[in-house]
Amino acid sequence: MAFDRARFRHALVIGGARSGKSRFAERLAAATGLAKVYVATASAWDDEMRAKIARHKEDRQGAGWRTIEEPLDLAGTLCREAAAGERVLLVDCLTLWLTNVMLDGRDAEAECEGLVGTLPGLAGPAVFVSNEVGWGIVPENALARAFRDAQGRLNQRMAEACDRVVLVAAGLPVVLKPSAAAG
Amino acid sequence: MAFDRARFRHALVIGGARSGKSRFAERLAAATGLAKVYVATASAWDDEMRAKIARHKEDRQGAGWRTIEEPLDLAGTLCREAAAGERVLLVDCLTLWLTNVMLDGRDAEAECEGLVGTLPGLAGPAVFVSNEVGWGIVPENALARAFRDAQGRLNQRMAEACDRVVLVAAGLPVVLKPSAAAG
Amino acid sequence: MAFDRARFRHALVIGGARSGKSRFAERLAAATGLAKVYVATASAWDDEMRAKIARHKEDRQGAGWRTIEEPLDLAGTLCREAAAGERVLLVDCLTLWLTNVMLDGRDAEAECEGLVGTLPGLAGPAVFVSNEVGWGIVPENALARAFRDAQGRLNQRMAEACDRVVLVAAGLPVVLKPSAAAG
Repeated sequence: MAFDRARFRHALVIGGARSGKSRFAERLAAATGLAKVYVATASAWDDEMRAKIARHKEDRQGAGWRTIEEPLDLAGTLCREAAAGERVLLVDCLTLWLTNVMLDGRDAEAECEGLVGTLPGLAGPAVFVSNEVGWGIVPENALARAFRDAQGRLNQRMAEACDRVVLVAAGLPVVLKPSAAAG
Repeated sequence: MAFDRARFRHALVIGGARSGKSRFAERLAAATGLAKVYVATASAWDDEMRAKIARHKEDRQGAGWRTIEEPLDLAGTLCREAAAGERVLLVDCLTLWLTNVMLDGRDAEAECEGLVGTLPGLAGPAVFVSNEVGWGIVPENALARAFRDAQGRLNQRMAEACDRVVLVAAGLPVVLKPSAAAG
Repeated sequence: MAFDRARFRHALVIGGARSGKSRFAERLAAATGLAKVYVATASAWDDEMRAKIARHKEDRQGAGWRTIEEPLDLAGTLCREAAAGERVLLVDCLTLWLTNVMLDGRDAEAECEGLVGTLPGLAGPAVFVSNEVGWGIVPENALARAFRDAQGRLNQRMAEACDRVVLVAAGLPVVLKPSAAAG
């Protein structure tokens, strides 16, 4: 069974921009020893982005990752992949996915619940990367405020649903769950 | 005595926007088993805000909270309430209070010292919720810069004065005080 | 030997604005018992800033610090100072230094590698203060986005190179390195 090899069922890795959270999540996934599937949520909206995505995909291929690109239907993708055999899934990242969901005019809360709802049914472990975006001054832009509210709620919901949650700063982990404190 | 029932005298709960810090603070206060008083610092400056505040107040009433609304005179309110009998006070939140203080043209540093000065005299436990707002790029707006400086100083002063300080991310706590490390 | 007296060779202290990270770093440096050298990276671009810098310098002088001002050539300064005898160096802060580097049109990544490369050769301990700036909404300004990427990468590189890394919030430390977790 896939879960026997991993020390977690579902892991959430959160942190600021350029905090090293993706690299940390990759190591977490690699440590399972399972076949690795990378679910990339970035949308290639211009040539520069397309080139960057292609380069990252090639880098990961060298390190043994298969890459799936899915900007919106994350729940469906996870279910399909999990049914296909023993593997670990790495979703990078929920912040770009949430951006795509909101830009597409979808209901962020319903989509988040849909995503959280797929977790118990997954046959193998999954690692989710997400940004912390609410530690600054209140944004003047209303869409930015709505986004940081939705992102904060998503991170809370995912943290409830995952059995392992790690905050990364400067590439280093603070384990939030399971709790370090006994009492 | 009220402090015998609580595991803290004064607790500070900090975190980003939508980090779950208010919910964490409510659980902390509820765990004392004391009568619960919620000190709301939000100002109802439009109908939407008024409706939101009324809805939250009703929710809390169902959960056994009495709500006091006080946007500015926090020190006076705390002293009055603490003198009125055995109870736990939850102040949510210091960030809105500081906003009100600064918009009212008051001296933020003097008001902060006034607030900190009331703590030793309180007869029962109190929980304070406050935002972390200084983890982003320097704001272009001068008032925003002044606010994040004042908020940072307030959180430092309160953290000194409280015997329990918790940082919340994605609904999960990192205990900053008492320190987890021995050495 | 200078390192015998310190509990760290190179320490990185990170945190948000007004988090108390400088004060924490000063205590860390003072605890070594060595002669203290403060390397200030702030540029005095107006009279207000000049006055502020002079005041801080005077305050530190009273507390036994010698101050060196160096906005750009941090690697050279560290090498020169380390060669001059037993002492602890405190660099406050890498964020202003990185700002100066980028405003001067230099290659941020090359400068960061240059700085990291000096660490193994230093004869005594050093403490570096740096800001976390990536925990907010994506900035609309392209330079701000480039800066937060560069700052995030710098903090990761320095955290790799240092044997002690501390995240400070509300004046209180979360030790990121050495890791608190055993497994």
